[in-house]
Amino acid sequence: MTPQKVIQTHEQYMREAVAAAANGIRSNCGGPFGAVVVCAGQVIARACNRVVKDCDPTAHAEVNAIREACRVLGRFHLEDCELYASCEPCPMCLGAIYWARLRVVYYAATRQDAADAGFSDALIYEELAAKPEARSVKFVKHSGVEAVAVMRTWASDPNRREY
Amino acid sequence: MTPQKVIQTHEQYMREAVAAAANGIRSNCGGPFGAVVVCAGQVIARACNRVVKDCDPTAHAEVNAIREACRVLGRFHLEDCELYASCEPCPMCLGAIYWARLRVVYYAATRQDAADAGFSDALIYEELAAKPEARSVKFVKHSGVEAVAVMRTWASDPNRREY
Repeated sequence: MTPQKVIQTHEQYMREAVAAAANGIRSNCGGPFGAVVVCAGQVIARACNRVVKDCDPTAHAEVNAIREACRVLGRFHLEDCELYASCEPCPMCLGAIYWARLRVVYYAATRQDAADAGFSDALIYEELAAKPEARSVKFVKHSGVEAVAVMRTWASDPNRREY
Repeated sequence: MTPQKVIQTHEQYMREAVAAAANGIRSNCGGPFGAVVVCAGQVIARACNRVVKDCDPTAHAEVNAIREACRVLGRFHLEDCELYASCEPCPMCLGAIYWARLRVVYYAATRQDAADAGFSDALIYEELAAKPEARSVKFVKHSGVEAVAVMRTWASDPNRREY
């Protein structure tokens, strides 16, 4: 990993996250969101939302910052890192945070601020909490194809890499 | 988009998703999960979990398939597509499904099957439903940096592209 300047206060890390958001909208990358990942006092990844520019609905700032941090560190867990996000992460990003095993997330604006700006984060939180049959997206359990066998094959492989 | 063979039954689409999962573990890409996106009767994207191979905790099969489908179609919404997943999507992938505006998701194995194979999907669903202060990941609201202004700047731009 290339050492970058060490910044020492939460406020300065958060300023970098908000600056990434501002840069993102100036470059027409997507929504007004930015995030940085800090490891051992260093900002190792900074990212903005790139949904529009990358034509990718998953390219949220937090997802992009996590992906970049993993690339820089060469591993897919970030348990020794912290995430600073300009806004409270949406459910997708929250899931990414858990899979990346981050332990601390700092955020500035809230999901309500995001809703006020026209984003669906709050709605998606409600949908996630709802039972599958009550959601606006239709989730259909399909029983015609055996799918568990491949999972058992994986689970019984002593060389599998868990994540 | 390059036309691919048209397949006509749910069962056949699901077989492709499960085949992608099986291919993925044979190639040591990551966990035993696969997904395909269908548009107008054609499979336009197929993907497996690539967390290990890509060193990316967000590289779940559903996320990968959505990203690939958007790349193929050149747009970041998939409201006219369907997703077939070998296993019930985790919360991160569920969020991605909402952001991509998919309307129907077919899945074979369940989140409990995933838990039985050692995956944390069920745990993350519980964490998402919990209040931020009750979660195992610490979420800290930071008040020292103005972050809403950049969101207002974006929201007031008549040329913004919503997603």
